[in-house]
Amino acid sequence: MAERPIRFGIIGCAEIARKVSRAIQLAPNATVSAVASRNVDKAANFAKANGFPPETKIYGSYESLLDDPDVDAVYLPLPTSLHLKWAVLTAQKKKHLLTEKPVALNVAEFDQILKACEENGVQIMDGTMWVHHPRTHKMKEFLNDKERFGQLKTVNSCFTFFADPDFLKNDIRVKPDLDALGALGDAGWYGIRSVLWAADYELPKTVTAMQHPVLNEASVLLECGASLLWDNGKIATFHCSFLSNLTMNLTAIGTSGTLHLTDFIIPYQEHEASYTTSSKPGFNELVTGWVQLPSEHTVTVDLPQEVCMVREFASLVKNIKNNGAQPDKKWPTISRKTQLVLDAVKASIDKGFQPVEIVS
Amino acid sequence: MAERPIRFGIIGCAEIARKVSRAIQLAPNATVSAVASRNVDKAANFAKANGFPPETKIYGSYESLLDDPDVDAVYLPLPTSLHLKWAVLTAQKKKHLLTEKPVALNVAEFDQILKACEENGVQIMDGTMWVHHPRTHKMKEFLNDKERFGQLKTVNSCFTFFADPDFLKNDIRVKPDLDALGALGDAGWYGIRSVLWAADYELPKTVTAMQHPVLNEASVLLECGASLLWDNGKIATFHCSFLSNLTMNLTAIGTSGTLHLTDFIIPYQEHEASYTTSSKPGFNELVTGWVQLPSEHTVTVDLPQEVCMVREFASLVKNIKNNGAQPDKKWPTISRKTQLVLDAVKASIDKGFQPVEIVS
Repeated sequence: MAERPIRFGIIGCAEIARKVSRAIQLAPNATVSAVASRNVDKAANFAKANGFPPETKIYGSYESLLDDPDVDAVYLPLPTSLHLKWAVLTAQKKKHLLTEKPVALNVAEFDQILKACEENGVQIMDGTMWVHHPRTHKMKEFLNDKERFGQLKTVNSCFTFFADPDFLKNDIRVKPDLDALGALGDAGWYGIRSVLWAADYELPKTVTAMQHPVLNEASVLLECGASLLWDNGKIATFHCSFLSNLTMNLTAIGTSGTLHLTDFIIPYQEHEASYTTSSKPGFNELVTGWVQLPSEHTVTVDLPQEVCMVREFASLVKNIKNNGAQPDKKWPTISRKTQLVLDAVKASIDKGFQPVEIVS
Repeated sequence: MAERPIRFGIIGCAEIARKVSRAIQLAPNATVSAVASRNVDKAANFAKANGFPPETKIYGSYESLLDDPDVDAVYLPLPTSLHLKWAVLTAQKKKHLLTEKPVALNVAEFDQILKACEENGVQIMDGTMWVHHPRTHKMKEFLNDKERFGQLKTVNSCFTFFADPDFLKNDIRVKPDLDALGALGDAGWYGIRSVLWAADYELPKTVTAMQHPVLNEASVLLECGASLLWDNGKIATFHCSFLSNLTMNLTAIGTSGTLHLTDFIIPYQEHEASYTTSSKPGFNELVTGWVQLPSEHTVTVDLPQEVCMVREFASLVKNIKNNGAQPDKKWPTISRKTQLVLDAVKASIDKGFQPVEIVS
């Protein structure tokens, strides 16, 4: 009984659901048991194309899937504007919720979803994969090392990709009625998360958006950035864009060390991932070279990061289901902080790039 | 006659003068002919310690060196606050001027120096070494490649180093009467230059300083940053600090490519230097890895970057001296733009982090 996998229902057949449903099938403690689309043929084709088990139930409505007693947890890859409705309903149907990011359009919506999850005793986690990568845990050990890294001083995070004309015209991420947060919700979510991750999820005091973000004609953000400031003098900046070449750099600098990597969201390769650290480097006597070069560290991967995410989520669900445990609070807390900062960036843009205080 | 090296006089025995005087000795078209300190013994010891030719003239005053007819050019490593006086006098004495950066405390001073150089027909160049590195030329080829790099969209530049308590108490770079521009003048100069370099020296329209820079009790900047914005939507950020681990990252992102390196000011090693480029990378079908990894390029070095700088300067001087050429305008133009942006960062800080328009 304890070894029975957590049974996932997938609501919506988005592109990202292909990757995550593969992860559900690869996770040792999870299985796909149902898939729903508003078009039943689409759901059937999705199940077939992604090699779902033959017994997978195919639904032509999200409601029917939510009524299925053989579904323990829902993976929700719908556009952000639909999250509130379907996440709340998922919770009310006592299904645990793995939802794509951004979790909601704003913190007010986020809190409605969270309330529904808490009232119904279900786990919520957002689909940010990289934080589950074993590399991320190794990097955190370095950031926590007072001797090698010291005290965090500054973080710079950048995630950009060059969207083609079709994306810029038709993708849900440029549509105000679908993913209204645009590049900020899609790419910026990762930048904000990475900054918070480096800062041990200590919220900044203020957030100040960079001047002149780029918006499309429907006022959806295609490019923006912000600086985040903490009371103790830490400062971070992030930049996100649909208009620049694919780049995902993260640099965290402490008083004694520097962490750096250039593929933090999706590692270059699935089977291994690298990062560099330097600790108290200096120059040679004439300052014509460095006396200590940064060192590269490679982490071998047993399970891809999205599988680690599903495994972690399913493990929490199992603990609730089998042992009567309470839902874990760490993941929703992290998600909510990300959403808070995201809201602050938007608010700062709306206020003419003035600093916005973070009130949690 | 045409093969006679340019004869340098060195005014001041700063640490950095050790590196540059070695470069003058290594450059094929330059030689050290004189050194001056306000203390003649210090000058003599400096000449000995740095292996100057036995015929090198040793002066106990800067004026005497400037009166020496056997000095063609002066290398000026004095604190910034002394630049105006000694740079102008150097020009008036018809000596060409290789000056440490920042060139001046502000553009008004810069323009007085420039005017003196122009009126006296002498060359001026600032001591920013990395722009003379052969790697820099190779990287520029990539940035100029419309197919591989596309149009520049964003630049992020970071130069920090962790100053020890002695530096923070005693170094000229924390003294308001010596290098009053602090970290902005010392480290930020490189960041600003790197951004301008990537932007083909097109001046930004506005400069906005990051909130809450760190100042010492004498109001000298120990840490700051800014964002730069161009009319065509390009955006750049730089961060500089005396308070964080040694880091020197530069990332320039275009519509089709990304340039990245982590030792842009002083290469890790003297004999070779690397950078990475990526051009139109993408993801594999399930977005679990990249289909095209960034490639690393290594440039082998015949002459260290500071020698390339001296060689370039001496070559311009030679052309003036032997061929009656006009002083080159490229280098002072680049220097002045750097100083203009530096002034704007200071102005933005003074105006409560409001955007400051650049007026050239």
